[in-house]
Amino acid sequence: MNISVIGGTGDEGFGLTLRLARGGHHVTIGSRSQDKGAASAEKARELLGGDANVDGTTNQVAAAAGVVIVTVPFEGQAETYRSIKAAIEPGTIVVDCTSPLATAVGGRAWHVVRPWHGSAAEQAKAILDPGVRMVGAFHTISGEALQDLEHEMESDVLVCGTDKEAKAVVGGLIEDIPRLRWVDAGDLTQARIAETLTALLISINRSYKIHDAGVRITGRDAWGLPEG
Amino acid sequence: MNISVIGGTGDEGFGLTLRLARGGHHVTIGSRSQDKGAASAEKARELLGGDANVDGTTNQVAAAAGVVIVTVPFEGQAETYRSIKAAIEPGTIVVDCTSPLATAVGGRAWHVVRPWHGSAAEQAKAILDPGVRMVGAFHTISGEALQDLEHEMESDVLVCGTDKEAKAVVGGLIEDIPRLRWVDAGDLTQARIAETLTALLISINRSYKIHDAGVRITGRDAWGLPEG
Repeated sequence: MNISVIGGTGDEGFGLTLRLARGGHHVTIGSRSQDKGAASAEKARELLGGDANVDGTTNQVAAAAGVVIVTVPFEGQAETYRSIKAAIEPGTIVVDCTSPLATAVGGRAWHVVRPWHGSAAEQAKAILDPGVRMVGAFHTISGEALQDLEHEMESDVLVCGTDKEAKAVVGGLIEDIPRLRWVDAGDLTQARIAETLTALLISINRSYKIHDAGVRITGRDAWGLPEG
Repeated sequence: MNISVIGGTGDEGFGLTLRLARGGHHVTIGSRSQDKGAASAEKARELLGGDANVDGTTNQVAAAAGVVIVTVPFEGQAETYRSIKAAIEPGTIVVDCTSPLATAVGGRAWHVVRPWHGSAAEQAKAILDPGVRMVGAFHTISGEALQDLEHEMESDVLVCGTDKEAKAVVGGLIEDIPRLRWVDAGDLTQARIAETLTALLISINRSYKIHDAGVRITGRDAWGLPEG
């Protein structure tokens, strides 16, 4: 699977790059700067060993992939999508990982702001071509934990989207990361709730002076693709 | 501990009554009708066995307790608080369990509305005497599962509040229910996120055609009272 990670030089993006490349995928790191993208890719290859399939380029070049994962802070999210819009083909699966933390407006990381469209993922969908298959995911997965390759992930990914097939494709990528499970949380509007969990987990981290609170969904032994 | 459950004839309230009484507490079920309150208490005593300490009365009489747990639908929440306000002494710990589901306005149970004060718990706080110690909790705990006494609870309670001592008291009650854990989610404003989890869990239930999705918080082996 040809995957690109827009904003792939940040903690969340670089962590996802490492984990997905280790899962056997070809990952392209996108950055605002070609040089930074290439340097991050080199760092990823060093960390993963010689046969890892990672390269780096600009966000615009990276955006021409089958699955485009976007990991940027909320304050730059709309601008980033506008800058890559022309490069994203209709039919592309775009995975938005943005949480609208209040840090975007100088506030606290355990508070959120409310995007006009309801969620950051819906804002992204409103910017892109209507034929793009938008999925929201990874809001409960710490970038720090993803980057620590010895760390066993212990959190579920809530996957939100209206296109069930696209959710299943993203779910398949998630299953390629050991111990990471995905839960179909419903349509894209459920991102309004899922995105805010980042702030709740940061608040819990703050209460307990830890840094890696996560969530597991209970009620079934296994999640993944819903039946029917 | 003298506990009352306002709206204790409903699923969530009756389930909490059963579990807390089984934990050894004296629980008073409050209802809009004295007769219904008394009938629910009788049913609880039958289910629990003869020595269970449960009685039933009106919401107004029940509201004079050390810990007042309020389990009513969002559409009736403000009115209920106004009706018991005079009976609640300053210093009382009030636990609001309301989730602002869109069903309150004829919408869907997997959608939420946004209370003017940010959360249902903050709305409750704005109605009551400022000396009341408000805590938000139990949004991720299914009333159905609570009522099924053979069912092992498998979900964490996110406890939100500004009064740490009050949170610890409520946490102690939660620990009296087997397998139920509590997590200090931060101050009362975090209820803006925690309350919406009810809708997210209902959405997950809908995706998988189940009825008891819950959440466990990961990152520590045990939660409960934060150090320091």
